[in-house]
Amino acid sequence: MIEDKNQQRTNLSELGEFGLIDHLTKNFQIKKTSTIKGIGDDAAVLNFEKKNIVVTTDLLVEGVHFDLSYMPLKHLGYKAIIVNLSDVYAMNANATQVTVSIAVSNRFPLEALEELYAGIETAAKIYDIDVIGGDTTSSNTGLLISVTAIGEVDPEKVVYRNGAKPNDLLVVSGDIGAAYMGLQILEREKEVYKVNPNNQPDLESYSYIIERQLKPEARKDIVKLLSDLDVKPTAMIDISDGLSSEIIHLCKQSEVGCDLYESKIPLDPQLISTCEEFNIDSTTVALNGGEDYELLFTISQEDFPKIKANPHFSVIGFITEKKAGLNLVTRAETKIPIKAQGWKNFSD
Amino acid sequence: MIEDKNQQRTNLSELGEFGLIDHLTKNFQIKKTSTIKGIGDDAAVLNFEKKNIVVTTDLLVEGVHFDLSYMPLKHLGYKAIIVNLSDVYAMNANATQVTVSIAVSNRFPLEALEELYAGIETAAKIYDIDVIGGDTTSSNTGLLISVTAIGEVDPEKVVYRNGAKPNDLLVVSGDIGAAYMGLQILEREKEVYKVNPNNQPDLESYSYIIERQLKPEARKDIVKLLSDLDVKPTAMIDISDGLSSEIIHLCKQSEVGCDLYESKIPLDPQLISTCEEFNIDSTTVALNGGEDYELLFTISQEDFPKIKANPHFSVIGFITEKKAGLNLVTRAETKIPIKAQGWKNFSD
Repeated sequence: MIEDKNQQRTNLSELGEFGLIDHLTKNFQIKKTSTIKGIGDDAAVLNFEKKNIVVTTDLLVEGVHFDLSYMPLKHLGYKAIIVNLSDVYAMNANATQVTVSIAVSNRFPLEALEELYAGIETAAKIYDIDVIGGDTTSSNTGLLISVTAIGEVDPEKVVYRNGAKPNDLLVVSGDIGAAYMGLQILEREKEVYKVNPNNQPDLESYSYIIERQLKPEARKDIVKLLSDLDVKPTAMIDISDGLSSEIIHLCKQSEVGCDLYESKIPLDPQLISTCEEFNIDSTTVALNGGEDYELLFTISQEDFPKIKANPHFSVIGFITEKKAGLNLVTRAETKIPIKAQGWKNFSD
Repeated sequence: MIEDKNQQRTNLSELGEFGLIDHLTKNFQIKKTSTIKGIGDDAAVLNFEKKNIVVTTDLLVEGVHFDLSYMPLKHLGYKAIIVNLSDVYAMNANATQVTVSIAVSNRFPLEALEELYAGIETAAKIYDIDVIGGDTTSSNTGLLISVTAIGEVDPEKVVYRNGAKPNDLLVVSGDIGAAYMGLQILEREKEVYKVNPNNQPDLESYSYIIERQLKPEARKDIVKLLSDLDVKPTAMIDISDGLSSEIIHLCKQSEVGCDLYESKIPLDPQLISTCEEFNIDSTTVALNGGEDYELLFTISQEDFPKIKANPHFSVIGFITEKKAGLNLVTRAETKIPIKAQGWKNFSD
């Protein structure tokens, strides 16, 4: 929230569309053997031999998915890649390539886009993917980022949402709800800043939950870990819209019910203390918050010994027959139906 | 430009994001053997066996690439697919799948998006491609469409921009410049409409050039025709930004020069008469207009007999050594350097 008054500003019109793409992508290197031709022709050319490929796409819109008053552009570039890779990993696949398109208004100087692309480049390096194409155009208002991610997977290893069976265990990676509460902290500080721009916020006690919001990671490590443990989930989905929404998707497509145990939902201590501070129920946040980018999956009971005691995994419930419905078993041991809330983009 | 006052309006918030995607894509069928799983999971799953796959992406932004006051939404959906398929065909590949993402403000009722998707569906049917995924989100202002297209090609058949050699012939499909003049007609009629909304324009004598702007086609047929004629171009590019801009790209990447003959550029009679009416030079329009979605390619001279006299092709020049530069040979037989103008998205 601190503006550097001396920052350099190069107007985008000085470069033009082709100059801009060339400039922003000049450091991007091709590393994957499946990438035959990257940026620079009418299309990229890939070859995956006999593997299956997975394709997923997401739009991030300023004012809807992010607020540049507290989201640094480098983090935004990083996050735009992460949210797509998370969908690739949720297929039990390895991410290999992305295309990145942006629509941007003239109010952004070149240096701002360089920051954005620095974040994209960092994510590409850390997650070992190639940036193979994209489009750059102007917009009349804010910034919009469209990413398409591609991954590869052995045909017999693909995991869909629809394979869960009664008695399977419901498992989640990492912890849930932190990204949402990180956003609440950022929104609060924005209001404080509006009133008193000289206020220097002390955000150290919220560092984890803020990082979960501003710089989330995708669980590439979980795909590898499951493979190393010789566990193939029966169904899998990534948690972008909140645990309850994703459980509903998974159970609906698998035509099953489930019992989810409130007491088993993994919550970070910082999330719990922040929920107490805001007087919000942490279970509600975990169920409906979203943007966790963890993986939710089901495994057959015989695989339980393989994941038991692994700190990356929490067994949070089990799958039931469809007619039993989707239930949250509360700490008071009452059953209440699970309802989706998640993000409502189109509400007035 | 005629509004139907009785049209039905269903607010997008009544459906929510998931309901909206389900609703808009419910008629979309999977036909390609390379599509294993389409819409409905974290990602689509594809398999191309040993073929190369090509990937290309484009953004279309309201107020930058289209104006809804004269662009019907169904045509816009169709065109959004076409502009991407054109890039696939420019690799000498067959288009197989697309993802379509939209950001849309609440001012659009559901029925408007149904129109848009009807156009997408029509294009998917005609060009025999599967719609395998996408994202739907709100925007604070207008409409934005992001399409990623995927195609397949035998590895030995891929054609890049960089293979042109001195003495190769420079060939273009169809005719050039009409889409740009179609846009000039539509812009003029918009101004007339503002002054007198009751004016009923007679656009029959502009029907071809308006169709080239509002409902362009991609040259899938040319990829097949080249294959049938046993011609593999040495380089190829699609003409989206104007002939001169694309010739510059092709020659730059191939490290060659060229002589382009003004008298050989294929122009439709309706384009010529409209240029006369507007007192604009038709060569300037052909060189800088853009949005033609024709294919520009080079072939070795020995392939000339195979394409000679084919009405789909015009030989418009030949490739020279790089040091000879890029030249337009005018009707007066003077040589002038070719300069890019094309679309300048970021100009103030």
